[in-house]
Amino acid sequence: MSRLAKEKQFVAAFFEEAGAEIIASFQKNLTIETKSDRNDLVTNIDKQIETLFVQRVGEKFPTHRIFGEEGMAAEIDTLDGPVWIVDPIDGTLNFVAQQKNFAISVALYVDGIGVYGAIYEVEKGDIYTCEKGFGAYLNERKLPKVSSDAAISDHLLIANLSAIRINERLFEAIKESRGLRLYGAASLEYMYVATGRAGAYMSANLAPWDVAAGKIIAEELGCIVTRLDGSQMNMLEKGSSIVALPHVHKELMQNYLR
Amino acid sequence: MSRLAKEKQFVAAFFEEAGAEIIASFQKNLTIETKSDRNDLVTNIDKQIETLFVQRVGEKFPTHRIFGEEGMAAEIDTLDGPVWIVDPIDGTLNFVAQQKNFAISVALYVDGIGVYGAIYEVEKGDIYTCEKGFGAYLNERKLPKVSSDAAISDHLLIANLSAIRINERLFEAIKESRGLRLYGAASLEYMYVATGRAGAYMSANLAPWDVAAGKIIAEELGCIVTRLDGSQMNMLEKGSSIVALPHVHKELMQNYLR
Repeated sequence: MSRLAKEKQFVAAFFEEAGAEIIASFQKNLTIETKSDRNDLVTNIDKQIETLFVQRVGEKFPTHRIFGEEGMAAEIDTLDGPVWIVDPIDGTLNFVAQQKNFAISVALYVDGIGVYGAIYEVEKGDIYTCEKGFGAYLNERKLPKVSSDAAISDHLLIANLSAIRINERLFEAIKESRGLRLYGAASLEYMYVATGRAGAYMSANLAPWDVAAGKIIAEELGCIVTRLDGSQMNMLEKGSSIVALPHVHKELMQNYLR
Repeated sequence: MSRLAKEKQFVAAFFEEAGAEIIASFQKNLTIETKSDRNDLVTNIDKQIETLFVQRVGEKFPTHRIFGEEGMAAEIDTLDGPVWIVDPIDGTLNFVAQQKNFAISVALYVDGIGVYGAIYEVEKGDIYTCEKGFGAYLNERKLPKVSSDAAISDHLLIANLSAIRINERLFEAIKESRGLRLYGAASLEYMYVATGRAGAYMSANLAPWDVAAGKIIAEELGCIVTRLDGSQMNMLEKGSSIVALPHVHKELMQNYLR
């Protein structure tokens, strides 16, 4: 039986409240024209959503700590006990330029183990959730495990330009694949792989809040998540990231990344 | 007054019929698992949609010629008179892997001039249309002209890896910009720029059917469309392509592409 009923209900309520604020901001955003104002406004929305999260966690879970992009919570240097890791708007530049292809990412780690992750693609109304060990869902629909034997040649790859420039051989992997894509929101790019719509997503430098929820969901569905050198991630540090289908991860590690 | 009422009605009816066939194919597609079968099926759908288009044009406009990706129509070597240029599924690899981020692209050229363009993003239900000189629309909504003075630093850029590798200085343009994106369907990438959600889209090698409709819509909204060397496109030949906001096009040409 699920142990996290209260936490799930909490995240669902937060997404509803935060989503409404973000959608309301679209109208304001459209009326502001200069670059600096537009950036300021977006920063305000990022901070506004993170502040809302900090408030709501404080009300419901006063002993839990919070680790987030906008620094509205206290700084933390250990993952002891329950820690929420939040990105109020993952894909901020897409949010500014496109008002789509961005998401809210929320994860709960307990003693360093990811136990619950949730990603809300606000513009589409899609919510991905996973309690570790109890399956992953897109809205009400349980997601299937990813294919364990599909090769690079069967899949699209997602990679940012820095990852490709650092690892020249990735050009060869991309040629071997069905092609390169790049969407600019890590949490959603994790979900592309977790739902089998891409074989791997590689990035040279991501923060814990970019990947904290995506990692829980992707691993639950059978994906492999590591640094680009194959080492384990630490949710206190920034660094490179790869999430991939198992066989694609193996091929990339053996032939292209090490 | 619009001169093309019959043609517009024709394209709308074709999109409805073709969209239904494509959506029906999703279910079949999901039940097929091996790569070769899956590719065969997709080829079948591409051909099926183009064949449908050739049939329907033959019924309504028997004197018009057709130029299309799947070669179901006659080969043509001039653009005299009315010529329909069609891509039944632009973004085939996205269609296979993701069942989204693909579109049907249809354009009517008369004596080499694009007079009507229409792009249908089937999965979203979005239809972009433009009769040259009468404005461009997303569904029922008239689209605004693009900003004429926004610079590279204000915008996301879309570029395929070949375009970047051929033009090393594009790395610098991407660093100057808000970031790189890549979606893998030219017609939709043209629409990202035409609606101001990206500053430019550059590709090293596209076919006429990839860009025929997008060019009409993008130019109507104030975008500049050329080859990567700044020369004009010829709708009979494959080649490079850039669609950009006016000021971004100027900056790219002056500082990064020539």
